[in-house]
Amino acid sequence: MQELRDRIAREGQNLGRGILKVDSFINHQVDPNLVLAVGRELAQRFAGRGVSKVLTAEISGIAPALTTALALNVPVLYARKTKPITMPENAYRASAPSHTKGHFVELMISPEFLQAHERVLIVDDFLASGQTISALALLVQQSGATLVGIGAVIEKTFEGGRASLLSQFNVPVESLVAVTDMSDGRIIFGD
Amino acid sequence: MQELRDRIAREGQNLGRGILKVDSFINHQVDPNLVLAVGRELAQRFAGRGVSKVLTAEISGIAPALTTALALNVPVLYARKTKPITMPENAYRASAPSHTKGHFVELMISPEFLQAHERVLIVDDFLASGQTISALALLVQQSGATLVGIGAVIEKTFEGGRASLLSQFNVPVESLVAVTDMSDGRIIFGD
Repeated sequence: MQELRDRIAREGQNLGRGILKVDSFINHQVDPNLVLAVGRELAQRFAGRGVSKVLTAEISGIAPALTTALALNVPVLYARKTKPITMPENAYRASAPSHTKGHFVELMISPEFLQAHERVLIVDDFLASGQTISALALLVQQSGATLVGIGAVIEKTFEGGRASLLSQFNVPVESLVAVTDMSDGRIIFGD
Repeated sequence: MQELRDRIAREGQNLGRGILKVDSFINHQVDPNLVLAVGRELAQRFAGRGVSKVLTAEISGIAPALTTALALNVPVLYARKTKPITMPENAYRASAPSHTKGHFVELMISPEFLQAHERVLIVDDFLASGQTISALALLVQQSGATLVGIGAVIEKTFEGGRASLLSQFNVPVESLVAVTDMSDGRIIFGD
């Protein structure tokens, strides 16, 4: 997706240790028109898969998952990392390491909103090691719903998440921009 | 906003102690078409105020703030509650009690994304006691930007937040649905 790639090239910052800062348009501050285009593109990649619900993880997955859900005309569900008092005790739970916060987080969803008949598309802002997305997919498995695809806005191919997800879950994995190398302060894009 | 009011009447749950559960369409699960309509309505209420940025707090403010920003064609910024490693040390900070989590949270924004020339509209899912929104407004003040309005999707008028905000900040406060009474398990709407 050229528009996104250009934006990363212009505003993305390589903070070292594989950390790509995109706080000016994806995380923290969000460009709503860009994220609308991102959602349309992700929706198009999974058209025909019969998606009935988009699933993401709070916090930074919410914006692209919402616009994907809008384009697919289905609800979006975001897994919580802190249990709100409105969530029942029988929540589905899975844990994942937090790349940018330095500890493990637990992802929780309420069984009310993910049922066995659903066909679920997982959307997140980054596909890096794949561990957050893997935890989301485990929540889908707990619910008995069917995972039909995984979409990410930005993939860091050098972290190996795609291979890990493909080995665990037999679904298509799509990303809109691939960053293949961040060594030596660079941001190198794939095809 | 009739569509929203109808949805609350149909799916909202009064959990007691003033807690209104709207997890099936606003928090946790989000109806993207409803939240798109919410954003358009909030944008219309503040048309002509010269809004250059929408500000909200993670997590559940993100969806309505994004759609409001989309309708106003401006960026949206969400204050973080946990400092990501991508955020500089000189973040603006303000604290607010968390109604649904039972402790205080700190809201943080990066000075990079809120500058003195900005005209800021605060959008959040709920206006209850007003303390989260007040903390957001304090962040705007720290930045030197101009607060031009406060918009909430659902107002719980019996918590007094509107009066508190109006006494602190001289800006219009708008909500799309007012819930005036939640005693005895009821959900009573205002005009």
